[in-house]
Amino acid sequence: MSRLHLGRAPLTYIICQIIVILFFGLFTEFKKGADPHGGPHAEEVGVELIKNHYACFQDVHIMIFVGFGFLMCFLKSHNWGSIGYNYLVACWAIQITILWSHFWKQVIAYYEDPSRSFEKLPLTIETILEAEFGAAAVLISMGAILGKCSLFQLFAMSNFNVFFYTLNRAIVFQIFKATDIGESMTIHTFGAYFGVISTWFYQPKQAIEDKHELGKSNYLSDLVSMTGTLFLFVYWPSFNGGAASGSKQMRAVINTYISLTASVIASIIVSRITKGRKLEMEIVLNASLAGGVAMGSNADIIAKSYGAMLAGFIVGCVSSFGFAIIGPYLTKKINLHDTCGVHNLHGMPGVIAGIISAIVISRGGENFGDNYALNFDGTRSPSKQAGFQLAALATSLGFGIFGGIVSGLLSGNHNPFFEPVPVDHFFDDMFAWDECEIDHRILYNLQVQRALEISESKRSNFKHVITNVPNTVQEEQDLDTLNIERGTDASE
Amino acid sequence: MSRLHLGRAPLTYIICQIIVILFFGLFTEFKKGADPHGGPHAEEVGVELIKNHYACFQDVHIMIFVGFGFLMCFLKSHNWGSIGYNYLVACWAIQITILWSHFWKQVIAYYEDPSRSFEKLPLTIETILEAEFGAAAVLISMGAILGKCSLFQLFAMSNFNVFFYTLNRAIVFQIFKATDIGESMTIHTFGAYFGVISTWFYQPKQAIEDKHELGKSNYLSDLVSMTGTLFLFVYWPSFNGGAASGSKQMRAVINTYISLTASVIASIIVSRITKGRKLEMEIVLNASLAGGVAMGSNADIIAKSYGAMLAGFIVGCVSSFGFAIIGPYLTKKINLHDTCGVHNLHGMPGVIAGIISAIVISRGGENFGDNYALNFDGTRSPSKQAGFQLAALATSLGFGIFGGIVSGLLSGNHNPFFEPVPVDHFFDDMFAWDECEIDHRILYNLQVQRALEISESKRSNFKHVITNVPNTVQEEQDLDTLNIERGTDASE
Amino acid sequence: MSRLHLGRAPLTYIICQIIVILFFGLFTEFKKGADPHGGPHAEEVGVELIKNHYACFQDVHIMIFVGFGFLMCFLKSHNWGSIGYNYLVACWAIQITILWSHFWKQVIAYYEDPSRSFEKLPLTIETILEAEFGAAAVLISMGAILGKCSLFQLFAMSNFNVFFYTLNRAIVFQIFKATDIGESMTIHTFGAYFGVISTWFYQPKQAIEDKHELGKSNYLSDLVSMTGTLFLFVYWPSFNGGAASGSKQMRAVINTYISLTASVIASIIVSRITKGRKLEMEIVLNASLAGGVAMGSNADIIAKSYGAMLAGFIVGCVSSFGFAIIGPYLTKKINLHDTCGVHNLHGMPGVIAGIISAIVISRGGENFGDNYALNFDGTRSPSKQAGFQLAALATSLGFGIFGGIVSGLLSGNHNPFFEPVPVDHFFDDMFAWDECEIDHRILYNLQVQRALEISESKRSNFKHVITNVPNTVQEEQDLDTLNIERGTDASE
Repeated sequence: MSRLHLGRAPLTYIICQIIVILFFGLFTEFKKGADPHGGPHAEEVGVELIKNHYACFQDVHIMIFVGFGFLMCFLKSHNWGSIGYNYLVACWAIQITILWSHFWKQVIAYYEDPSRSFEKLPLTIETILEAEFGAAAVLISMGAILGKCSLFQLFAMSNFNVFFYTLNRAIVFQIFKATDIGESMTIHTFGAYFGVISTWFYQPKQAIEDKHELGKSNYLSDLVSMTGTLFLFVYWPSFNGGAASGSKQMRAVINTYISLTASVIASIIVSRITKGRKLEMEIVLNASLAGGVAMGSNADIIAKSYGAMLAGFIVGCVSSFGFAIIGPYLTKKINLHDTCGVHNLHGMPGVIAGIISAIVISRGGENFGDNYALNFDGTRSPSKQAGFQLAALATSLGFGIFGGIVSGLLSGNHNPFFEPVPVDHFFDDMFAWDECEIDHRILYNLQVQRALEISESKRSNFKHVITNVPNTVQEEQDLDTLNIERGTDASE
Repeated sequence: MSRLHLGRAPLTYIICQIIVILFFGLFTEFKKGADPHGGPHAEEVGVELIKNHYACFQDVHIMIFVGFGFLMCFLKSHNWGSIGYNYLVACWAIQITILWSHFWKQVIAYYEDPSRSFEKLPLTIETILEAEFGAAAVLISMGAILGKCSLFQLFAMSNFNVFFYTLNRAIVFQIFKATDIGESMTIHTFGAYFGVISTWFYQPKQAIEDKHELGKSNYLSDLVSMTGTLFLFVYWPSFNGGAASGSKQMRAVINTYISLTASVIASIIVSRITKGRKLEMEIVLNASLAGGVAMGSNADIIAKSYGAMLAGFIVGCVSSFGFAIIGPYLTKKINLHDTCGVHNLHGMPGVIAGIISAIVISRGGENFGDNYALNFDGTRSPSKQAGFQLAALATSLGFGIFGGIVSGLLSGNHNPFFEPVPVDHFFDDMFAWDECEIDHRILYNLQVQRALEISESKRSNFKHVITNVPNTVQEEQDLDTLNIERGTDASE
Repeated sequence: MSRLHLGRAPLTYIICQIIVILFFGLFTEFKKGADPHGGPHAEEVGVELIKNHYACFQDVHIMIFVGFGFLMCFLKSHNWGSIGYNYLVACWAIQITILWSHFWKQVIAYYEDPSRSFEKLPLTIETILEAEFGAAAVLISMGAILGKCSLFQLFAMSNFNVFFYTLNRAIVFQIFKATDIGESMTIHTFGAYFGVISTWFYQPKQAIEDKHELGKSNYLSDLVSMTGTLFLFVYWPSFNGGAASGSKQMRAVINTYISLTASVIASIIVSRITKGRKLEMEIVLNASLAGGVAMGSNADIIAKSYGAMLAGFIVGCVSSFGFAIIGPYLTKKINLHDTCGVHNLHGMPGVIAGIISAIVISRGGENFGDNYALNFDGTRSPSKQAGFQLAALATSLGFGIFGGIVSGLLSGNHNPFFEPVPVDHFFDDMFAWDECEIDHRILYNLQVQRALEISESKRSNFKHVITNVPNTVQEEQDLDTLNIERGTDASE
């Protein structure tokens, strides 16, 4: 069929998908309550696991696909790209996180005890919850380069990202035995710096210049984006508490919940202070969530809730100032073009969260008393554990930065293999999507024409100089094609 | 930095937030399954509480932030304000409801037994579920004055609201021992009448006049609003059943579910009857939810499901007629400007729900037999309990009305302290939000210009061959009708 | 009151609603954990049922109202109709599915053992989960005729649909004892072919012609539609696993989850291959979900997860090719006008899922070993069970086709009783909804007028006298500021 075009990207996707299917066939098995050969005990385990974790897992699942997806829809001409790429990239990240995560776990287990034999990857609800976390790291990195890259580049990036994410995670949890229940360090800090470093490989100067003024939000796109913010806000307690159980889970839920309410208040305050008497949507959309990141390393280990509220408030302020002042400053000084502001929402808050966790843990003895061993590695003193927290923060930062460089070098806009987006089509859905006609551009064109026409009519009797508009209209049916052409013109 | 403006409102927010953090530090502790010092039993309690209530809690959480938030987005030029203020106000309401609720509980406990010593506020999943309920009361009141007030005024209002809400709640539940599982009386009736009374302090005449025609919905804003309706509809069974367990919870869930399907049907029927052969979006968006309010006081105590269905149907009809006929009538007669129609959705249905609960309870003996004491205060006869239901309804109404007057007097539009919105900017996001440009207004302007131009060109040389456009434009007010005609023309 | 019009449709709705309330009163009772007269054991059962099934139930509830509802919003001028009718029809379908489902169960139980006496309909969480499934079947059929029919026709259709759905379901599960955990055969296959057959009774030629070009999506409507896709994607594991428990449920969840990620990848690949180098929204919106349908009959019986991934990938490809190639081909050849493409998303995938289930079951002995009897009817050999799967597929197809014919004959567009929509108002919300003004049509009109005017002005002189517009436009860059000013002007 002449209509089929089998290009480089689809071919890569097919090959990769087949490899993953093969790996799932060779190395995975249903275990722990999902085992087809399990006895009556396995059935009970299955029932308990579902009761304990399924609701949280589904909340996290919504956060990844609906939360992150819609939050990134703030770009007015990149809605389809934001929500669509988020969908596609997250699915791929889920599949490979499951495989890589087990791989590194096995490597480190082997490194610690070389006599250990290889274990098959157990598929259970905990596996798929972990897979979501891998997707989160990828999507945070994606937020920094959104609109400046193709889906194929994102696909490449997600492979590098998951490789380093799972490696760092295995080191942090298996070797450092750090506590990072909602993964502020391993997801947020790692993902943000991975993304931020990558941005320099995606033509930041041209992106900042933004010749066609497409890299902006409008009234509607910010409203749509609010959907993402709200689902992230509501379900964040499940993100931080989903993997735990008992009192740790309960504290994680309540601390995250309280911390978030304070960062929302912080986002209004800073927005009012920095924007005259007005509120600012970008800050409300993003910085209001910083309380969730603040609790990522701390939700379960904070024993007094006012600490969570205070942390949420402070980190919320930092993040808000990030969007209002620090971000624009970095853009001017070092050409940082961070599309979604992940440095402000995940980067700085993630680092602060890691530092707070070291401080909190150093007082773990007083806070938990006899229950210390229940919450931390009982063989370590609080101050030693605090040291490992900082080590975890350092490796997360390190892997993030190193991974970002590797990913940028191999799949950045200078490399034509991964189909980079031409600068003229940054932030533009029309480039990547079939049958994509954007209403607000047509409106904008009408406005431009109108204004030109008026200024023109002042000078002459009446002479049209607008070149953008076709000269004849044979019949009304032609107009539909016309719209698309004119819509496109506006951005060229 | 000269860009920072620390005004009255941000300063108030900062001080209030710091006070709340202090109070959380002094008076709260993790308890019941969240206790850092709890023994193994506490861990089990934590596991059970999460299993029992967490999914319901999250559903309610979505209702507050996504449900209420989007439902209020129907105002075409007040989307950001609706969803944004909802977000900010709900967070504040949550924080202070936790504190005030415990305060009044302690006061009443002390009043009943003065020997009792003060107990710290226990933070557990039940605490945060209760906090959501407080937010609901505030948001319902907010619905009545939406678009006519500033965020600072809403902040003030929420403080008065929570003060009275928690006081009334403590009286109704601790003294009257009324049954109100989904809080039709304490949330819906209270919140609605609080809001309705407040409206007279927010320039109702000018709001009704609505000079710039901004206080309306459009095609898109009503669609966005539908998101809110659907999440409220779907999760309402969790709202009514979330705090219960066992057979009470199951009945609450099923009765609410069934009642809502009937009120949805009622909303179509009344909309068809009152709007010629057409459906009406406002009715479908709002009155379809009346079945949930109808079950608020009754979900667990109705022992036969047809009763739930019948109640949902009747209350759905009342609410629909409220939107179609009673609301407009009250607007004309007594200048009631109730932006979201909370009187129709929460006010009247809440009162009816309270009355139904008294009737249902008076037959509690037959319906529950040996289980009577499991569902009601066993020391009271059914008819006595029914009396207390009516008392609960009366105090809820009373506190709502009184609270609304207090709040209106202190933070209404006559008081410049809380930054009231000038009448010319009612229902207008551009006034309160930075970088807010509204596409549909640009479109409207182009249309107006076009129409003026055409009427003008009649007098000059130019001859139009466009047949689609009306010939004369008597005045700008006519344009609205015009738009609809032209909109329709395009498709014919 | 002269404003009330009590027509044929509202009257029918009222009568039907009253009958249903009567039937609920006569034939239902709260049972199994919801029983008002149950002993302490009933209370425990209630607690367990809620813990096991409530979260899944709520996920499915969201899928029906938010997922299906928004997925159908892709029609640019039929948003209100899509989301509104979905809401209204689903509520009705829920009510009658509860009744019909019990009726047919009793009939078959009586047929198998005539000595059995009638049992009241037990209302429990399983009842309302089943009700959702009935709504799903109706909504899938509705997808095929969406935009071409009135609400009254949909009401009629839903009655026929539920009648046949519940009958077929009773045969498949009670007589054939087929395994169809997520009902690929009984919901998807049945619903899709019911809908597809119906389409020929709703003026397919005129719908294909689509004179006013309303039966299309635009930039925004496809974005809104993505909301539906994402909620369906996220919660589909709950749809397939909601009714099960233990290891069956866990496998169902994981297999569905994995299968869906693969069908998402498939949808990108096929979209890239068939649309040049571009992605195509219709395919991403719909075919990406085919992995969920693929698992409907298989989620719990696939014992190795790579099988789920492979099935998801293959069915995803088939569905994508359906949207890209097969669908358009059928439209041209046999006048199939399937508005939402339910044949591509539910029809073909459902049939394939049924066939796969027969294959998988034929190897049930190896896969489940000693647990065979736990997962299938222990009295049957795998191959015999496989045969019954195919029988179930055949009856589902048969009842779908027969039901579609009956429904089409009785409530199609040739029958004036159910208020058919005139062809000129296909896909048009303005016809059915009061106060419905569609912005993008106004924009389109302005565009048409502009183009006509320009072609006109070539021929004549032309003098502008518009006063509303600024006098000079220094350069195009100024226009952005301009917009804001003018936007503001409109409201002042």
